[in-house]
Amino acid sequence: MDNLDLIKEISVASPTKIILLVIDGLGGLPHPKTGRTELETAKTPNLDRLAGKGICGLIDPVAPGITPGSTPGHLALFGYDPFKFNIGRGVVEAMGINFDLKPADIAARGNFCTVDETGIVTDRRAGRISTEKCAELCRLLDGLAIGGVKILVSPVREHRFIAVFRGEGLASEVSDSDPQQVGVAPEAVKAQNAKADKMADIANEFIAQAKKTLAKHRPANMVLLRGFSRRPSLPTMPEVYKLKPAAIAGYPMYRGLARLVGMQVLETGTTIKEEFATLKQNYNNYDFFFVHIKETDSAGEDGDFERKARVIEEIDKALPTLLDLEPDVIVVTGDHSTPALLKGHSWHPVPILLYSRWCRPDRVGEFSESACISGGLGRLPATEIMPLAMAHALKLTKFGA
Amino acid sequence: MDNLDLIKEISVASPTKIILLVIDGLGGLPHPKTGRTELETAKTPNLDRLAGKGICGLIDPVAPGITPGSTPGHLALFGYDPFKFNIGRGVVEAMGINFDLKPADIAARGNFCTVDETGIVTDRRAGRISTEKCAELCRLLDGLAIGGVKILVSPVREHRFIAVFRGEGLASEVSDSDPQQVGVAPEAVKAQNAKADKMADIANEFIAQAKKTLAKHRPANMVLLRGFSRRPSLPTMPEVYKLKPAAIAGYPMYRGLARLVGMQVLETGTTIKEEFATLKQNYNNYDFFFVHIKETDSAGEDGDFERKARVIEEIDKALPTLLDLEPDVIVVTGDHSTPALLKGHSWHPVPILLYSRWCRPDRVGEFSESACISGGLGRLPATEIMPLAMAHALKLTKFGA
Repeated sequence: MDNLDLIKEISVASPTKIILLVIDGLGGLPHPKTGRTELETAKTPNLDRLAGKGICGLIDPVAPGITPGSTPGHLALFGYDPFKFNIGRGVVEAMGINFDLKPADIAARGNFCTVDETGIVTDRRAGRISTEKCAELCRLLDGLAIGGVKILVSPVREHRFIAVFRGEGLASEVSDSDPQQVGVAPEAVKAQNAKADKMADIANEFIAQAKKTLAKHRPANMVLLRGFSRRPSLPTMPEVYKLKPAAIAGYPMYRGLARLVGMQVLETGTTIKEEFATLKQNYNNYDFFFVHIKETDSAGEDGDFERKARVIEEIDKALPTLLDLEPDVIVVTGDHSTPALLKGHSWHPVPILLYSRWCRPDRVGEFSESACISGGLGRLPATEIMPLAMAHALKLTKFGA
Repeated sequence: MDNLDLIKEISVASPTKIILLVIDGLGGLPHPKTGRTELETAKTPNLDRLAGKGICGLIDPVAPGITPGSTPGHLALFGYDPFKFNIGRGVVEAMGINFDLKPADIAARGNFCTVDETGIVTDRRAGRISTEKCAELCRLLDGLAIGGVKILVSPVREHRFIAVFRGEGLASEVSDSDPQQVGVAPEAVKAQNAKADKMADIANEFIAQAKKTLAKHRPANMVLLRGFSRRPSLPTMPEVYKLKPAAIAGYPMYRGLARLVGMQVLETGTTIKEEFATLKQNYNNYDFFFVHIKETDSAGEDGDFERKARVIEEIDKALPTLLDLEPDVIVVTGDHSTPALLKGHSWHPVPILLYSRWCRPDRVGEFSESACISGGLGRLPATEIMPLAMAHALKLTKFGA
């Protein structure tokens, strides 16, 4: 029996409300000059007060030492084992542009690339063509029909696009055409089992037609496809948790992820204030709110320590909007760490704070990486967060007699 | 997908260097007079300073409450699940004497023992005959050929030896002849499945011939065999981690274990200084160094609290030799605890200290059992150490998109 099966068995619908506030890339590393992380540098009186009343800890999104992408990071926060539910690159890209994938669609991530006259790849990114140029080229390829399968091509950003294969008898078990290096020809797409023969044939024919169409568009005179995948069928949050969940996220990627687990995605803006206002407006209609704040991660990726700290201060300032609603449970954490010093996602565990009138408070009085080490939640896998939030909202019955 | 598969997928070769310093049996228990463990009694200014800059914690080599042998203790430190990769007694003994086991060989651990005129075992250890006597008797049995199978017999220590069966069609699934008690006759070796019939027959014939040969050598007038096993095929550290790993260990057992996981075993002495000098000399040729120090465990097994503390002080004094090399990651820990008060291996978790410029320091400023409780690594399974060391050496890429 896996964790979700257990939760499904013991979860009950109830009027109590849970807010899961995800501060993307929250965890950091100390600034060499001050010895304080981004979170420890930011002035956060509201979060500190909440930490004092609540219980804190550190979570490992995937496993100690493993740096998670946004998808496994979020799936784990929603309670889904990120190893078991590994979502393919094509699907992730499609979610990122909010593409409405049907259950039978096969999505692949594409690159426009440059090949020389002998067909050898000389630039896997076609000199990073502009997003406008990408959109123009996608229009040339979009809507082809091959062997009864329709191919939908949509731009992502710069040289990146997605190709979605829609039709009957397709399977995702095919290899990439992208050789992941220059100086060699693109590879043929190969079926990895007998069911995938049709998919491989159609992908190869699509690539051949694309090559012809793009011949005069050097540097973007060829395509590379990888990560063929189908939208996974996940047990939804309403099924597992008996929740009526809503997602408030400005960025399409996170909206796509939320939809994948059965959340209702609410229209909102991209600022913290707009997102919090959306929550307030919809507070009576749902019992679970996933609120996603992106700017901390962006600042971390840019290596901008000060900006990351400033965004955390902004969140802290806006926090009373949420607290005034008196949710039964509020969880504040991140999907992974993004230390400004590393300019990217990292493996460091993420601080977490859970407040509920039913939590057993620890002695932590500030919300920071170093204080969370001695928190009452200890160090735990991120997949444990949802069961803990549900328990503190009195939405789980007893296991066993 | 198991942990090693994941690591294999995301690990990358890089010039950064990792030192894993294993202080055998490091963990201890407080002396009743002082309330301080061996590690807490030793003066360790260098380790304490490193703990201040690094991150600490406690590891469970196998699982809480489980006392590990040296083999599972080390396998876990190298990242291998000790339940999945359970290595038979015969193979462990063979590694311990640096015997060159071939992949198809079946090794059994043997005891010379005493039987009375009716064949009943009266002493399972033949009065602990000398190692010299053991070697002499082994020469009498070594090199027998039975049914096309050659039997290689080598002395270990005192009454202990190994019997290695080399030939075609052998299997390890046979029962022990050692009844593990006196007052009964040795048992017949029995096949546990159909494939093992030949192995059982040959083992029984070997025992019968040994009995004849040894008849006049009372008290060592019989043999008992147990732990028939074949060298397991483990994914190697170069395969899994893309490392070029070297082992520096004075004792054959640990050299054998290192070889089993694909490390290059370097020639070295048995003192701490000699081992550290070997590391320094070979620093440019490898990117991972397993350094094993045995004397802490030996002192613990002898119940010699003071000696164990003194060895830890020696290690601390020699530590600058390693630190001066400025490794990207240094991990200091043990394969299990060996409290002098228990005179043996124990289940107590083992202190660990990891230093890297990319670690997130905690508030621990000394390397001791009690300080490590509040360390930022928390309490974690020993198998997580390698992923953490790899991450801090920036040798792991992101998992998932």
